[in-house]
Amino acid sequence: MSQKISKAVIARLPKYYRYLNKMKEQGIERVSSEELSHLLNSTASQVRQDFNNFGGFGQQGYGYNVKELFSQIERILGLGSSYNTIIVGSGNIGQALANYKNFENYGFKLIAMFDLNPKLVGLNVNGVEILDVEKLQEFLSKNSVDIAYICTGEHSAQKTAEILEKGGVKGIWNFAPVDLELGENIIVENVHLIEGLITMSYYLNGEAR
Amino acid sequence: MSQKISKAVIARLPKYYRYLNKMKEQGIERVSSEELSHLLNSTASQVRQDFNNFGGFGQQGYGYNVKELFSQIERILGLGSSYNTIIVGSGNIGQALANYKNFENYGFKLIAMFDLNPKLVGLNVNGVEILDVEKLQEFLSKNSVDIAYICTGEHSAQKTAEILEKGGVKGIWNFAPVDLELGENIIVENVHLIEGLITMSYYLNGEAR
Repeated sequence: MSQKISKAVIARLPKYYRYLNKMKEQGIERVSSEELSHLLNSTASQVRQDFNNFGGFGQQGYGYNVKELFSQIERILGLGSSYNTIIVGSGNIGQALANYKNFENYGFKLIAMFDLNPKLVGLNVNGVEILDVEKLQEFLSKNSVDIAYICTGEHSAQKTAEILEKGGVKGIWNFAPVDLELGENIIVENVHLIEGLITMSYYLNGEAR
Repeated sequence: MSQKISKAVIARLPKYYRYLNKMKEQGIERVSSEELSHLLNSTASQVRQDFNNFGGFGQQGYGYNVKELFSQIERILGLGSSYNTIIVGSGNIGQALANYKNFENYGFKLIAMFDLNPKLVGLNVNGVEILDVEKLQEFLSKNSVDIAYICTGEHSAQKTAEILEKGGVKGIWNFAPVDLELGENIIVENVHLIEGLITMSYYLNGEAR
């Protein structure tokens, strides 16, 4: 696809995907842009604009066929494939992510975990063993890893990311509170949990009141 | 404030706040809408539009004064206040959140944790004791709690949320993968971690390629 889709549109696609998946499971057959807009706190015109970025899909006045729309968005998002993932940093956050069975349903398969803490190395979390982080480089040379979740402390994150980049990992999901500096060929998605709390503050005590 | 600000704008405010906070710490005095737009993967015109929602602030051509802009956004977001928070569900995710020291720097003070697992009750996490969830109702009647983080399993989340609502909690930060049904007076922010992975899939294997 040569056309450049804005990041704002891309950020909404997983939400459409999630809601359509639920509707499909509930046996709902059609959905209007109006209904979708309520779920996303958006407007019907915004929803139609979003879908126009990908050539439309949907007949004016009839709403969208849920199954069809879901398949289209699934294809656009590259889901339906399978991804090998690893976790580096197996403390609370790392272990919590390892326990999310939901990720595997979406095709994200956890194949290894790593930590430097000898108390954690050797533990089994949800069927996956925690390995010594000293073995990370060797592991990457022998296994094809698509995505690594960085759940280390702030100070190990950059070093870890560089090892992952050299080892051929394609994407990093970064939970460490630091901006990673890497080449342009690796995709980095940062998780900033604090933003959820700040939004809450706005509604409780800010100008929303 | 009577004017209705769109959720999309509100969702960007925490990002502005985070970046301006960092610039302030680094001693940067002025920033242009252009520079801010790069950090947010947005456009300069979008940044100016966002700030116009709150009456502008900034002189055309000179950029924004970082300290001033930061204070304004802090005020709009209702930060600088202090919030009492509790965690219900003290497994991996709950304990990970309890260990985020960053939250306290932003004014979110953790005053109690709860769980139903007798193996967890009595444990001390980052200076806060895990209490038996049976004591939640009583605790809420004696303490003023602003925000509760729900980190229970899927099946306990709705029941927990109802106890929190009755107990006068004003906001819920929900990590359980379920849509809570509550009255309109309580604010709910849901965390959907899977969306980060789906975005990654788009860049690795979807139509972004």
